[in-house]
Amino acid sequence: MKYAHTFRLIVAAVAAAALAEHTIADEGMWPLNRFPTGPLEQRYHFTPTKQWLDQAQLASVRFADGCSGSFVSSSGLVMTNYHCALECVEAVSEKGPKLLEEGFSAGSPAEERQCPGMELNQLTSMTDVTARVSAATKGTEGDRFAAARKAIFATIERECASSDDVRCEVVSLYRGGKYDLYKYRRFQDVRLVFAPEFDTGFFGGDPDNFMFPRYNLDLAFVRVYDAGAPLRSTHWFPWSADGATAGDLVFVTGHPGGTSRQYTVAQLEFERDVRLPAHLIYYSETRGLLTEFQRRGADQARRAGAQLVLVENSIKVLAGEFAAIGNPALLARKRSEESALQHAVAAKPALERQYGSAWKAVAMAMDRKRELWPRNAAFSRLSESELLGQAISLVRLAREQTKPNEQRLPEFTEAALPAVRQRIEASKPYSREIETVALAHILTHLRERLGIDDPAVKAALGRRSPDEIATAAIAGTKLDDAGIRIALMKGGTAAVEASSDPLVVLARAVDPFARDARRQLEDQVDAVVDRNMELIAQARFAIEGERVYPDATFTLRLTYGTIKGWNEGGKEVPPFTTIAGLYERNTGSPPFKLPERWLNRKSRVRLETPLNLVADTDIIGGNSGSPMIGRDGRIVGLIFDGNIHSIGGEYWFDPAKNRSVAVDSRGIREALRSVYQADRVLQEIAGRPD
Amino acid sequence: MKYAHTFRLIVAAVAAAALAEHTIADEGMWPLNRFPTGPLEQRYHFTPTKQWLDQAQLASVRFADGCSGSFVSSSGLVMTNYHCALECVEAVSEKGPKLLEEGFSAGSPAEERQCPGMELNQLTSMTDVTARVSAATKGTEGDRFAAARKAIFATIERECASSDDVRCEVVSLYRGGKYDLYKYRRFQDVRLVFAPEFDTGFFGGDPDNFMFPRYNLDLAFVRVYDAGAPLRSTHWFPWSADGATAGDLVFVTGHPGGTSRQYTVAQLEFERDVRLPAHLIYYSETRGLLTEFQRRGADQARRAGAQLVLVENSIKVLAGEFAAIGNPALLARKRSEESALQHAVAAKPALERQYGSAWKAVAMAMDRKRELWPRNAAFSRLSESELLGQAISLVRLAREQTKPNEQRLPEFTEAALPAVRQRIEASKPYSREIETVALAHILTHLRERLGIDDPAVKAALGRRSPDEIATAAIAGTKLDDAGIRIALMKGGTAAVEASSDPLVVLARAVDPFARDARRQLEDQVDAVVDRNMELIAQARFAIEGERVYPDATFTLRLTYGTIKGWNEGGKEVPPFTTIAGLYERNTGSPPFKLPERWLNRKSRVRLETPLNLVADTDIIGGNSGSPMIGRDGRIVGLIFDGNIHSIGGEYWFDPAKNRSVAVDSRGIREALRSVYQADRVLQEIAGRPD
Repeated sequence: MKYAHTFRLIVAAVAAAALAEHTIADEGMWPLNRFPTGPLEQRYHFTPTKQWLDQAQLASVRFADGCSGSFVSSSGLVMTNYHCALECVEAVSEKGPKLLEEGFSAGSPAEERQCPGMELNQLTSMTDVTARVSAATKGTEGDRFAAARKAIFATIERECASSDDVRCEVVSLYRGGKYDLYKYRRFQDVRLVFAPEFDTGFFGGDPDNFMFPRYNLDLAFVRVYDAGAPLRSTHWFPWSADGATAGDLVFVTGHPGGTSRQYTVAQLEFERDVRLPAHLIYYSETRGLLTEFQRRGADQARRAGAQLVLVENSIKVLAGEFAAIGNPALLARKRSEESALQHAVAAKPALERQYGSAWKAVAMAMDRKRELWPRNAAFSRLSESELLGQAISLVRLAREQTKPNEQRLPEFTEAALPAVRQRIEASKPYSREIETVALAHILTHLRERLGIDDPAVKAALGRRSPDEIATAAIAGTKLDDAGIRIALMKGGTAAVEASSDPLVVLARAVDPFARDARRQLEDQVDAVVDRNMELIAQARFAIEGERVYPDATFTLRLTYGTIKGWNEGGKEVPPFTTIAGLYERNTGSPPFKLPERWLNRKSRVRLETPLNLVADTDIIGGNSGSPMIGRDGRIVGLIFDGNIHSIGGEYWFDPAKNRSVAVDSRGIREALRSVYQADRVLQEIAGRPD
Repeated sequence: MKYAHTFRLIVAAVAAAALAEHTIADEGMWPLNRFPTGPLEQRYHFTPTKQWLDQAQLASVRFADGCSGSFVSSSGLVMTNYHCALECVEAVSEKGPKLLEEGFSAGSPAEERQCPGMELNQLTSMTDVTARVSAATKGTEGDRFAAARKAIFATIERECASSDDVRCEVVSLYRGGKYDLYKYRRFQDVRLVFAPEFDTGFFGGDPDNFMFPRYNLDLAFVRVYDAGAPLRSTHWFPWSADGATAGDLVFVTGHPGGTSRQYTVAQLEFERDVRLPAHLIYYSETRGLLTEFQRRGADQARRAGAQLVLVENSIKVLAGEFAAIGNPALLARKRSEESALQHAVAAKPALERQYGSAWKAVAMAMDRKRELWPRNAAFSRLSESELLGQAISLVRLAREQTKPNEQRLPEFTEAALPAVRQRIEASKPYSREIETVALAHILTHLRERLGIDDPAVKAALGRRSPDEIATAAIAGTKLDDAGIRIALMKGGTAAVEASSDPLVVLARAVDPFARDARRQLEDQVDAVVDRNMELIAQARFAIEGERVYPDATFTLRLTYGTIKGWNEGGKEVPPFTTIAGLYERNTGSPPFKLPERWLNRKSRVRLETPLNLVADTDIIGGNSGSPMIGRDGRIVGLIFDGNIHSIGGEYWFDPAKNRSVAVDSRGIREALRSVYQADRVLQEIAGRPD
């Protein structure tokens, strides 16, 4: 499973600086309106038509929480990963059968269960708005640049978002080299159709995460509803009868969350020295807390399971990224690429005047970031208690709504409000036990980062300990009740400022300090970096032209490659595994425990069916749930992970070793047929005869 | 509290490369037989006599587990930190009054409680054995160098250790520039005399750790017994009547555990990229586990308390070290110092021939270490379960004892055996609950680092999960019983190899893999590094002479400086705090909770008495419990910590900001008198009239 949940949604990218000999390899996460067909034709004698690209765009969906998926029937059926639907499976299990243990297969539309808070987006158009943004920010610097850009973004997005079922986002591609307006159709009624047992969906668990050979049915189906009925989907991917074989050309659509391939060396050093280790330390402690929390009992083990999975996944990603930057060879390569571009700029006086000082400016901003970031990060973590996160949203929403649209925090502009409201309104279960543990942790962390004599710490804690506050506040809050939250939201500033709910009180007390820390970071660091990264992007366009792809931005991208293994320490890793391997790996102990259903039905299963596969497509966290399709546009796989080398894909694409990991479409059908007897889904995905 | 427990006992140091202008500042941790009196006389008009130095040497003691202390009476009374005696306090509490809550003050010799497993060492002589070691290793390289050096060390140490109450260690100073034989008198009967409550000894807890202003009575007294009676100590430090004032010259004796001030840049980069983050991740998870474990109940909270304190302390140290190396300015300084020395060598052809290739050789060895270290580290962690650690000791002891002394692992040579035996024989309580948590953690970690298909992981786990193994093995083991361990030890190879104790079985299964990983690291990395660091040390002597101090090696050192505060972000921090401040900081919640006794007796306490102080003496982890004395050799303080800037002292001494933190001798007396009414200790330390 990949980094599906917590994205660093850095609206930031510059043109790729891949080594010359790799520039036009299979590497690249391409926006669909900027997809270069030349290299594909040259290498694979295939040119996707406009119709092919439109179909790829409209049959793909984004999960707003951080995943990808695809329509696979004309009735709004969406295929994604089990781990992308896990929060829904958990929420649905709260009042009903134990779906984590037993899995779920809806026998009729009436049995399909609504997923609280789940939002899906279908990309309907992309429009270049670079000229408009540039005009609005012209001649500005620092915090004035940031304010001007924020204002024009808010204006463009509000014009576009005509109603609540339209979502609009201005996306900064090539870190300001280009700005495109992305318009989505927004779906907020999504229901669970099929999910296997946790033990199957996460078979191999954390030990096998990012590993291959692999044996995993990381699969779920949900359905989009429109006005209470299944959506009539006009675009969807049909199923492939035969799947793919080694060497086949395949495509992946999806929403890679973010990459840092165009970071300057100073930015990479900041990641290595400050950000990645800080997160690793924090999440490792969280991991310990949750692991031991699970030992409180069976119920607690179940409730903390999903969160632990996410935390362990984050740790693996962060550790992999840290190892990648910690490899002296990578940094040496980045240094030499940067220096080559700087020399090319310096060789032309006109370019040198315009762009020559940009790298130094970024480096100085990163020095300042080393001072400012830790304090801001400690405040950001406050939302790791979900209930305190709700309180913070309520307080900020009330305070932001009193301001003109253009001056608000970006996540509270008019265009963004439907998503904010949905999160506040979603009725879902909260574990007060886990919330108490989480709140004590983040308050301890805040005190540790800021020091006990910091005014923000005094405002948050007074003379009490983090444990005391957490216990009292979580016991006393009513914010787990969606009705109470909605009432507070509707009551606006008056209601929120008057509330005596202990979490609202806490959120109000900390908010001014958190805003101040964020503003300092935005004005003194982000604004400087954004402006200068825009200059570097322009310098690169001037020298190299627009023949590279922008860093990932959690927007729809198309990547292609072939089904192939790789060489690991002298040994060839073959690209497919089979269901037989899954049975062999079963030890009877989690996370290698096959459910009874699989054991009982083993004799009916065609064991030689391919289960998982690898390909050299270029993906990253956020691509979880992405469809893998052949040149005929039919489903041959379901992306759910990358191999261990794919983690370094954050910084560069290694064609020799970076591999995507997918469930084979044949394995999916075989499991649905022989193990789950999920005939309804099977018939639906076979809707268009092969 | 400093890094008192888990030392990296790197037998490694080269001459200091401090910036020229600082070389003869107050900086320096000097071996007493190499103490340069010139700079001290020049700056402070004080030259310690031979008698003064002998007294400083013989009145100081080392705690074999990683602390320092001093004799403070003629009857073997030893002053140290509360945190250095904490394990003893815990063990004694197991069958008796709750000393952690109530503190302890023995009213008579009969009430003094034996500390299981505690060993104290008094340094009786130092002898230069460089010529003998050099002759034995002459002309060797790589693993042959390592084997030859190991053999001559074992031989010299065995010759020296005439009986079990003598401990001998060959110490590599200046990383092989000099070898000195250190001979200690060994004391293994040590009893607890006085300890305050945990809440007083750790007042401020982790939040205040490494902070100043500070309010902490981190104090304990133990007594050395000899043949069942209090030791007649011939050397001890008398108490100062008036303490010290700002600007006073003070000295600290003690056993700094290790510094890395002479690391090459390649070594520092390894620390930053690999070792420090790996430990931070591991201990942060441990912290989470223990924090949540404490919530199981009051008994568990108490039992896990001491361990959590050590883990949090380690995290703070590691994070501080990481931040120091992550500061680009520090690495730039190290790079330029290294390059200056390389240039000086290159300028003289004779030196260049002998030493010129040493830095490159170290750098290549560090590249190899990046590959080999993680596997070895995962095995090293197995002893973090104390009971599995006992099993590993028993298995290794049995297997090593069949080999000639010179070929054994260094920790099992004849000279080292008394300490090994004492650890095996010490009767102390183990918490099966904590041990189960710890064992599950280290086995999970082993599987994670090595991968589930690694033969060592298969040997350790079979088809079971880490949790299953941990639960069964800790429930089934009898190794918590010292009698069982002693029987196995006495039974030798036959008994150990035949044992069906589940932890012994586990230790036997993993041992060959762990040894193999260690041997690879030693032969391919350590041996190359040691040989080449010796060359770099010699190059430095050739160019700079022997005017610098060797890196710390957990051997006795003398450092001096003055009582003084520092400037923190533009604000002067004064060098003293008072008992009044302690009362003001009391919130009633741990770790800022003053015990009832303090509150009840507040009216009797002279509130203006100095409680804690800072000085610019040069100390590091291992100096915990060190006496601070004036030029008259009288006790003015008790080192227990450094300020936050002292952590970077691992890599360089910053005279502007690095400060030692001590309990003021006046605060100690006032607390003993007015709060604890510990008249017996008071009379004893006043033994020689002021």
